[in-house]
Amino acid sequence: MSASVSVAGCPQGGKQGPCQPAHHVSQETELPRPYPNEIPHNEKLLSLKYESLDYDNSENQLFLEEERRINHAAFRTVEIKRWVICAMIGILTGLVACFIDIVVENLAGLKYRVVKDNIDKFTEKGGLSFSLLLWAILNASVVMVGSVIVAFIEPVAAGSGIPQIKCYLNGVKIPHVVRLKTLVIKVCGVILSVVGGLAVGKEGPMIHSGAVIAAGISQGRSTSLKRDFKIFEYFRRDTEKRDFVSAGAAAGVSAAFGAPVGGVLFSLEEGASFWNQFLTWRIFFASMISTFTLNSVLSVYHGNAWDLSSPGLINFGRFDTEKMGYTIQEIPIFIFMGVVGGILGALFNALNYWLTMFRIRYIHRPCLQVIEAMLVAAVTAAVGFVMIYCSRDCQPIQGSSVAYPLQLFCADGEYNSMATAFFNTPEKSVVNLFHDPPGSYNPMTLGMFTLMYFFLACWTYGLTVSAGVFIPSLLIGAAWGRLFGISLSYLTKGSIWADPGKYALMGAAAQLGGIVRMTLSLTVIMMEATGNVTYGFPIMLVLMTAKIVGDYFVEGLYDMHIQLQSVPFLHWEAPVTSHSLTAREVMSTPVTCLRRIERVGTVVDILSDTSSNHNGFPVVESNPNTTQVGSGGCLCNSGAGSWLLLSQPVFVERANLSLVQRRLKLKDFRDAYPRFPPIQSIHVSQDERECMIDLSEFMNPSPYTVPQEASLPRVFKLFRALGLRHLVVVNNHNEVVGMVTRKDLARYRLGKEGLEELSLAQT
Amino acid sequence: MSASVSVAGCPQGGKQGPCQPAHHVSQETELPRPYPNEIPHNEKLLSLKYESLDYDNSENQLFLEEERRINHAAFRTVEIKRWVICAMIGILTGLVACFIDIVVENLAGLKYRVVKDNIDKFTEKGGLSFSLLLWAILNASVVMVGSVIVAFIEPVAAGSGIPQIKCYLNGVKIPHVVRLKTLVIKVCGVILSVVGGLAVGKEGPMIHSGAVIAAGISQGRSTSLKRDFKIFEYFRRDTEKRDFVSAGAAAGVSAAFGAPVGGVLFSLEEGASFWNQFLTWRIFFASMISTFTLNSVLSVYHGNAWDLSSPGLINFGRFDTEKMGYTIQEIPIFIFMGVVGGILGALFNALNYWLTMFRIRYIHRPCLQVIEAMLVAAVTAAVGFVMIYCSRDCQPIQGSSVAYPLQLFCADGEYNSMATAFFNTPEKSVVNLFHDPPGSYNPMTLGMFTLMYFFLACWTYGLTVSAGVFIPSLLIGAAWGRLFGISLSYLTKGSIWADPGKYALMGAAAQLGGIVRMTLSLTVIMMEATGNVTYGFPIMLVLMTAKIVGDYFVEGLYDMHIQLQSVPFLHWEAPVTSHSLTAREVMSTPVTCLRRIERVGTVVDILSDTSSNHNGFPVVESNPNTTQVGSGGCLCNSGAGSWLLLSQPVFVERANLSLVQRRLKLKDFRDAYPRFPPIQSIHVSQDERECMIDLSEFMNPSPYTVPQEASLPRVFKLFRALGLRHLVVVNNHNEVVGMVTRKDLARYRLGKEGLEELSLAQT
Repeated sequence: MSASVSVAGCPQGGKQGPCQPAHHVSQETELPRPYPNEIPHNEKLLSLKYESLDYDNSENQLFLEEERRINHAAFRTVEIKRWVICAMIGILTGLVACFIDIVVENLAGLKYRVVKDNIDKFTEKGGLSFSLLLWAILNASVVMVGSVIVAFIEPVAAGSGIPQIKCYLNGVKIPHVVRLKTLVIKVCGVILSVVGGLAVGKEGPMIHSGAVIAAGISQGRSTSLKRDFKIFEYFRRDTEKRDFVSAGAAAGVSAAFGAPVGGVLFSLEEGASFWNQFLTWRIFFASMISTFTLNSVLSVYHGNAWDLSSPGLINFGRFDTEKMGYTIQEIPIFIFMGVVGGILGALFNALNYWLTMFRIRYIHRPCLQVIEAMLVAAVTAAVGFVMIYCSRDCQPIQGSSVAYPLQLFCADGEYNSMATAFFNTPEKSVVNLFHDPPGSYNPMTLGMFTLMYFFLACWTYGLTVSAGVFIPSLLIGAAWGRLFGISLSYLTKGSIWADPGKYALMGAAAQLGGIVRMTLSLTVIMMEATGNVTYGFPIMLVLMTAKIVGDYFVEGLYDMHIQLQSVPFLHWEAPVTSHSLTAREVMSTPVTCLRRIERVGTVVDILSDTSSNHNGFPVVESNPNTTQVGSGGCLCNSGAGSWLLLSQPVFVERANLSLVQRRLKLKDFRDAYPRFPPIQSIHVSQDERECMIDLSEFMNPSPYTVPQEASLPRVFKLFRALGLRHLVVVNNHNEVVGMVTRKDLARYRLGKEGLEELSLAQT
Repeated sequence: MSASVSVAGCPQGGKQGPCQPAHHVSQETELPRPYPNEIPHNEKLLSLKYESLDYDNSENQLFLEEERRINHAAFRTVEIKRWVICAMIGILTGLVACFIDIVVENLAGLKYRVVKDNIDKFTEKGGLSFSLLLWAILNASVVMVGSVIVAFIEPVAAGSGIPQIKCYLNGVKIPHVVRLKTLVIKVCGVILSVVGGLAVGKEGPMIHSGAVIAAGISQGRSTSLKRDFKIFEYFRRDTEKRDFVSAGAAAGVSAAFGAPVGGVLFSLEEGASFWNQFLTWRIFFASMISTFTLNSVLSVYHGNAWDLSSPGLINFGRFDTEKMGYTIQEIPIFIFMGVVGGILGALFNALNYWLTMFRIRYIHRPCLQVIEAMLVAAVTAAVGFVMIYCSRDCQPIQGSSVAYPLQLFCADGEYNSMATAFFNTPEKSVVNLFHDPPGSYNPMTLGMFTLMYFFLACWTYGLTVSAGVFIPSLLIGAAWGRLFGISLSYLTKGSIWADPGKYALMGAAAQLGGIVRMTLSLTVIMMEATGNVTYGFPIMLVLMTAKIVGDYFVEGLYDMHIQLQSVPFLHWEAPVTSHSLTAREVMSTPVTCLRRIERVGTVVDILSDTSSNHNGFPVVESNPNTTQVGSGGCLCNSGAGSWLLLSQPVFVERANLSLVQRRLKLKDFRDAYPRFPPIQSIHVSQDERECMIDLSEFMNPSPYTVPQEASLPRVFKLFRALGLRHLVVVNNHNEVVGMVTRKDLARYRLGKEGLEELSLAQT
């Protein structure tokens, strides 16, 4: 009865007891790794233990029994609840976006006014270095606060959150990523970063914020606040929660860019494995509500209550087809801009990669991170100041739309054009570059600005502050795009190309596409943000070119960061050249198996064994009639989902009690979801260890399996399409021979020289 | 060795020989059927044998071997070919749309000018009945030609083709649906129907046209024309072809409405089971190219070469937010319009249902169908004429945008307002209703028009002509919507609601939503066609309301027609109350099994047996060691995909020869795809029958299986997510106990009183 016999695997060796957990056999044959010796295995990285979400856990007996009880009417109630939740997600996401927008606008306005007054004062009487100091100190102190809360309270709130949400939707649970605390830090952090004048945007973090809101609402409680509203208990499982998180992410995109369809496509592109019409429709609903809420509230706030002209945090302004149409001859030029964007994007990513490596190696202490953030803030202010100071590009203030015109050394009635770009929130700078009339900037200004901002933005991304890379990318692109347009107009003697704003738009698309490499969703987001369907075609071409060119050199920024963190991320398809690999070669083996009636001690020992490389354990049935061919156990069931639950002590304890009286209820699972206490935290007495436990209630009675001859793409497809966490590999006699986990699949990657195997963080 | 032993199923009884094919056991327990006794089992319906597409057949040994050989470079070539094909699909679809548009415009213009001249002539000297006669005869004769080609040459080209494409994308192969002949008839038919003045649109058929173009191009040959270009041979399998057909359908939507994103969403909503990022991106590419091609060509045709103002066959014209914005107070009103649209839509569908039943019973001879079409054409002209004749709604001709102003009895310089609606192509009437200034129509005109057109459109849908229902629905809705807007303005004394055009738009959305019940894609299509993102929110609310209200009464029009044809259509999810059903209850049993090495005679007999209810046969291996528990055969492999291929005589013949010398090549499958000759058409001699054939080459070595305890939703999810055609059900010992086919799953449906079982056409 003891867990000792472990010959070569479960079927061959397992007599009656469970087989021993063991490490991957297949990993011993190491394939070449990308970035050899470069991934630093310091404590911080390795301390991240990623768990997989399990979309298939709703099939354990307890859930199944509930599903069977559910009738038509109950289903309708559940369905209506889903819609209500989506509406709430939309409203709350919209309101959070409003909050961020209004606070940023006011605080940034205050800061710029103070600095402007100071500059105006010192311009006349000399001593502008005081202004520089004031600006730098203001920035640095605001950023310090923003960085401290992120670094010391919730490090997962750093950055845009898009890589984290991508991982979550892909099925990897990053600790703390959808907690309320993260949301609060994220929102405060992004406000402080933008107000602190960093080269960042507030749009990316909206996606993360929307996701957290969705996760919170759909569970009907906050574990951080220890409040349980006792509603929406039906949705306390991975698959439902994930669906709502996609809706939240979409609502975030929608609020950020006023792009409801773009939001839906973003969620689908990043998250959907199995397309479900009703789910998509709900996601769309949440997105629409979100942009509508933002629009209404901001319209009221701006005084013109009913005009609904602010669908997103950033609006590109109206691109009129009549005024700024494009012609077919321009399309090759746009494609060329895509190439430039791809190259610049790849450069950005490569620089950022080195920087990130440096940061992982040397700047992993929180206080160092805060100091770096302050340094960047101060340098940003200094660079801006010097650029403005040195610029001699004066423009008439008449009829321009500049918010904080800095006169500096310009004549009266004129303003410094460089200040439009540097002395402003990045969102406003982007819109100015799109829509300022021709001649508002001289080429020198644009060139210098592009160069400086490129390096600043690159340095800024990856700081321990909460901030996005969308807007800086757009800004860099808009600047060189406009420069490109002006040069083109100059070269062709201004024949047909009138408006540099059009080129600024294409440049912005090219640069953003070159950095993030999003495709379909980004096209639609840009299309919706410009409010012009006709621009869709050139934007699509530009983004596609930028992606192709960029991919030739280096990965997209988000994918790069995901890979740097060794997340077991599954792409859409198995690598094309992997058809020769079979499940047998990919799987983890031997597998720890359990029997339907098992000794509690054995179960506790297995669950406590952290060296086990999977969380699901096949429950096998030993058939007394077929022992002759060495098949000790034959797969009957795998308790994938429920075993995770059982791996938590509360349940082992209660499960023991069940032998006496109390039966474990579905409610117990739901109340504990998703933070199950670790098995080590409970004590199982020796008496209890000798009890027997019936696992049939917690297991999935009909797990998905694959034969061991199945090819890797086939296993991959099954895994991806069904959102699995474990897949049991069986032989011809239906005996368990191995287990495929997300990590086993994520290891294989198509590199430049064929199939590569990655090293991943512990699952 | 003879195929005789059939005790209770494959595993229990099958000793060595194959088990006998048999009919469904589970069908004997009949559940209540919807529309009891109403589905007419006449010859026409039963003659349709639907086949399932098989997206999983690419895993037989021959395909696998090729996949293994494929290297990185070859993969790139294939990928580039896919993009090239998508570009070609886009261009050709756009060109076909241009062709239809230009021909319709010219022919309809000619017709209306002739009739107008005639009316003008007879208005003065009396005898307008001659004009009526001329109009009716012109219409009827044009429609006759259109109906004759459809009824006698290619009946599958009738209607909009959307239900057929829905079925195809769902995985059901309707005979002839993607053939070149169908395309030609469809294009000519739709031109003739629209020119013939029927209450139809030319938009729906574009979706079908795009799909046919895609199917043709992707295969690199036309079997109708007997031309094989020897290109794109890699794509000659169901899964690849289906992907291209989705791209074609999207390109069709895109060309029809100038809605590239809407097209992508349409394809996904109808077709996608597993969301694939690259596929979606290609679909989007095809859509964009399609609308861009149409736009360029039509711009050139209309003389203003570069303005790109015709993105689709129908453009709703510009809805300016400034001029025609909506306010929050109007939203409840829009929702009410959604309710009205839902009710009217349900009425439309119910009437059309009865009409279709009548047609199936009594009008199934082609000549009767032609006569009915002519009758409808004549009646449409007559109704239009009488309405125009009786109308006294005269409007000043100055500044209006009417194409063929009929003066009739109006004063000089005025025109008959009813004629704007009736004496025009429906597309133009819709745009007029959206954009004509307030006061262009009096309420009486709109009311009468709505009433008449409603019944005409309802009568027209389902005629044996090639035509769509989109535009008539929009037209009906726009008419009552405008009427509603005018009444509202009148009731509130014209306080805030200025433009009835806005209400016409909402009415159009409500009516269309109430009839077709599309959701996400339709919102996006409408949004893109109006070119205004802000309208997205109310349009979404209206469509949602219309769908909810409509679904309460009766199904959507397309779904209704699909169900009337007893197509085994799989919806997105299994019925919610079906958790208590297991695979065992759903599956077909007993299953005909084959062994790896089988006698040719046995194979031929099994394939010739048309009473077999599935086309895939598990290949089992008998294990000599485990005979004791009555398990004669143990599942080894199921040749699902390849067996279909083998079920064709050419291959049986060649397979025989393979014992001598020649081996069957992948190329043989590809050359014959998709029209494999029937097994009956070849003769297998007695000697050949005694030969043995090795099936391992044609079978899928690792078929997907489910345990017999799996619940129906679980089986359904697997089936749907992976696009399966057969799914083998096994017991704990991995022995085949049954087979689940599409038909088995499609039978279960959620009716008003719980789970229902449908009767379906033979698969």
